Amino acid sequence: MPATRDASGPATAKGEATRAFLLRTAAAVFAEHGYTATTMGDLISASGLTKGAFYFHFRSKADLALAVVADQQGRWIGHVREQVGARPGAAGLRAVVPVMLEMIEREPGAWSITRLTQELATEPGVGPAACRFLAEWVDMIADLVRRGQAGGEVAADLDPDAVAAVLVGAFDGLKALTGALAVAGAAGADPQAQFRHRAQTLFTLVERSLLG
Amino acid sequence: MPATRDASGPATAKGEATRAFLLRTAAAVFAEHGYTATTMGDLISASGLTKGAFYFHFRSKADLALAVVADQQGRWIGHVREQVGARPGAAGLRAVVPVMLEMIEREPGAWSITRLTQELATEPGVGPAACRFLAEWVDMIADLVRRGQAGGEVAADLDPDAVAAVLVGAFDGLKALTGALAVAGAAGADPQAQFRHRAQTLFTLVERSLLG
Repeated sequence: MPATRDASGPATAKGEATRAFLLRTAAAVFAEHGYTATTMGDLISASGLTKGAFYFHFRSKADLALAVVADQQGRWIGHVREQVGARPGAAGLRAVVPVMLEMIEREPGAWSITRLTQELATEPGVGPAACRFLAEWVDMIADLVRRGQAGGEVAADLDPDAVAAVLVGAFDGLKALTGALAVAGAAGADPQAQFRHRAQTLFTLVERSLLG
Repeated sequence: MPATRDASGPATAKGEATRAFLLRTAAAVFAEHGYTATTMGDLISASGLTKGAFYFHFRSKADLALAVVADQQGRWIGHVREQVGARPGAAGLRAVVPVMLEMIEREPGAWSITRLTQELATEPGVGPAACRFLAEWVDMIADLVRRGQAGGEVAADLDPDAVAAVLVGAFDGLKALTGALAVAGAAGADPQAQFRHRAQTLFTLVERSLLG
């Protein structure tokens, strides 16, 4: 069995750079072929590393995919938390959709990381860890709803956790649907513009019902 | 190459019954393993038919998966259309979520067909046909929104197509998220009850913002 590192990854600067490079190339391979159809051979060949060097960083496809999800989701959640966390309840809630839209336009890979997270859900070993990022999104939004309710700005009769699940599910579902409608050849603008328009409609619906 | 039938399927009563049986067993196999990981061997072995008899009905995994999606989605769309279609705009819109919830509780396979439809999106040949069912859902809901707007019952400033995409995407995204949160080990009731509660919250949000 090849030498492997612990989950914290290589400690040297060069090791860190290689690891970051492997996460980027693997994200692109998973995005193109999907998780199940991707093999370790595909990932090693895309990296340009020897098999031994590759296994030094990641011992399996599932570990690498989870690291890709953790890296990307961790950065997004951190960014959104930073942007909306300081604002009081309703203002924070109002800021979530614009901040997420801006992030997605800056990082087109956003589309495929959501799909990869879902694909890992049924993968033994890594499923729970991958899905915990989705739970973290829901908890962050539920906290904003709760603060808004405490401040009297958000409709008090709604369950904050259910509202948060609706918002996170709606945002991710809208991304998946926009991709599918583009495949179906639905008339109209490019998928990115369509998604922005639909997400803004979601934002309007939420604003009117929660904060109206 | 084995003999195959045209897309309209076998014409005899026995052929029809076999085809219906194959669609049901295939739906279960796809639900358990996912589309990509399922092989023709898995499908043939689950059917109990000989290879030749199987290929008489379906010539490829993609064809069979598309037939599963078409059968199930066609029945659901037909059922929802029948239940809500006769009611005027806002009343039809109000009926959509309860009708879909009732359907999903009656047919637990609903969860996996949505996922299978999404999995086929990137499959060459069958992707556009599978995604057209999602477009059909969006068109049906958009039509209800339009009729409600014409009757003065639904907020007139919203784009009916975008509202419909939000509703369809939110419903499907909520199903996917509920599955993932269950994997993450989030506390609470069983996923089916969680989904019902969240879908009802979605319904309340929509009702307040669209029809309030």
